[in-house]
Amino acid sequence: MSPNGEELLARIDELESTNRLRELVADYCHGLDKRDEERFMRVWHKDAVWEMGSELGDFWGSAQIQQALVNLVWLDYPVTTHLAANHVVEFQDADRATGLCDLSCEATLACGDHLQTLATCTDIYERRNGRWAIVRRSVDVHHSTVVPPRLRATGEYE
Amino acid sequence: MSPNGEELLARIDELESTNRLRELVADYCHGLDKRDEERFMRVWHKDAVWEMGSELGDFWGSAQIQQALVNLVWLDYPVTTHLAANHVVEFQDADRATGLCDLSCEATLACGDHLQTLATCTDIYERRNGRWAIVRRSVDVHHSTVVPPRLRATGEYE
Amino acid sequence: MSPNGEELLARIDELESTNRLRELVADYCHGLDKRDEERFMRVWHKDAVWEMGSELGDFWGSAQIQQALVNLVWLDYPVTTHLAANHVVEFQDADRATGLCDLSCEATLACGDHLQTLATCTDIYERRNGRWAIVRRSVDVHHSTVVPPRLRATGEYE
Repeated sequence: MSPNGEELLARIDELESTNRLRELVADYCHGLDKRDEERFMRVWHKDAVWEMGSELGDFWGSAQIQQALVNLVWLDYPVTTHLAANHVVEFQDADRATGLCDLSCEATLACGDHLQTLATCTDIYERRNGRWAIVRRSVDVHHSTVVPPRLRATGEYE
Repeated sequence: MSPNGEELLARIDELESTNRLRELVADYCHGLDKRDEERFMRVWHKDAVWEMGSELGDFWGSAQIQQALVNLVWLDYPVTTHLAANHVVEFQDADRATGLCDLSCEATLACGDHLQTLATCTDIYERRNGRWAIVRRSVDVHHSTVVPPRLRATGEYE
Repeated sequence: MSPNGEELLARIDELESTNRLRELVADYCHGLDKRDEERFMRVWHKDAVWEMGSELGDFWGSAQIQQALVNLVWLDYPVTTHLAANHVVEFQDADRATGLCDLSCEATLACGDHLQTLATCTDIYERRNGRWAIVRRSVDVHHSTVVPPRLRATGEYE
């Protein structure tokens, strides 16, 4: 293959990688909200770190992340909807990238209150054996609003 | 063209298709919210199905979808803003794909109340004669919040 | 290079340009919300126009846009979170494109009130010397909701 062909391949590869990274950011939300543990765990590498700050804590490695998902997040927030937006990606090389995105989260708390949260995620991604996944995600919650239950019409996933 | 060239073309085609499918998901929102009937109808194939569940009903084919848009959605919700997020796409082959995305909708009801809704769309897309469009969209509404009018500052599109 | 090769390059270039334009739309939000003036100013060409309608005004050129950011937006809205969605792009040629997207904005006003705003952006983009940036952005605010402070749990960026 000519050098030119190799350069073309590298550009197509980066476009495909960008799409995979967008899907990771989306699947974090889908897995978490649809209670799909397998989909959620697939977005992380085995040695990944999930940093959720002073209130919720930091979780190191698949086992801790899975425990935090099931015994912390899903227990305290029985119904959640996360919307990811403003995703930007910067490649360090063909297999490593950093990312930034914002999350809006609507959650029903175990106590019945409704919570609106806005957060920013600072991410590190790596491709290992052809698979892109998150190596580190730091979630910085910067706004929360509680909506009293009486304002709500309906709830719960069907 | 060499086999390698054909593979490259297939990869570029899938990248372009992914962008077209993202635009479909966006144009569903733009068409619906900006009262642009042509833009909204363009996202559907003629034999498409729009499933909106037990409350709003299911609509089969362009004629029913257009009627539901004008006589149901636009009548009951005079002002709407839909935001699509978390779009993921899976290709079955070069011309068929499935998708998943979440929708946030802020609506002003005919009665004046303000409604915040969260929903998940499960989609089937097909490319026919070079044109990607939705074959089936199932909208699963899983959360609604009513905000009393007295909390609102302003409204209405300009 | 064969004509076919040139056509391939043009298609890859458009895919890359679409990603750059998505990043512009995201960086407008990140720059504005994270108080990152450099990131915000990078999304505009020097002669760009930022139209924010009758209430906030129109701003012509980098100097006015920078002043509006610092002395108007950041002063009146001490805390903001913008989420961009539904971005669609149409290319006029390889270096010029128009775009449409919706913005959701949660803001804390200087007076302490909390404001939820929905807006639509109509954009013109150009690539000059290899750099894509906004030439004109018209922001049409079509919905605002004020949430009284007593409903809010916490606030402020950490």
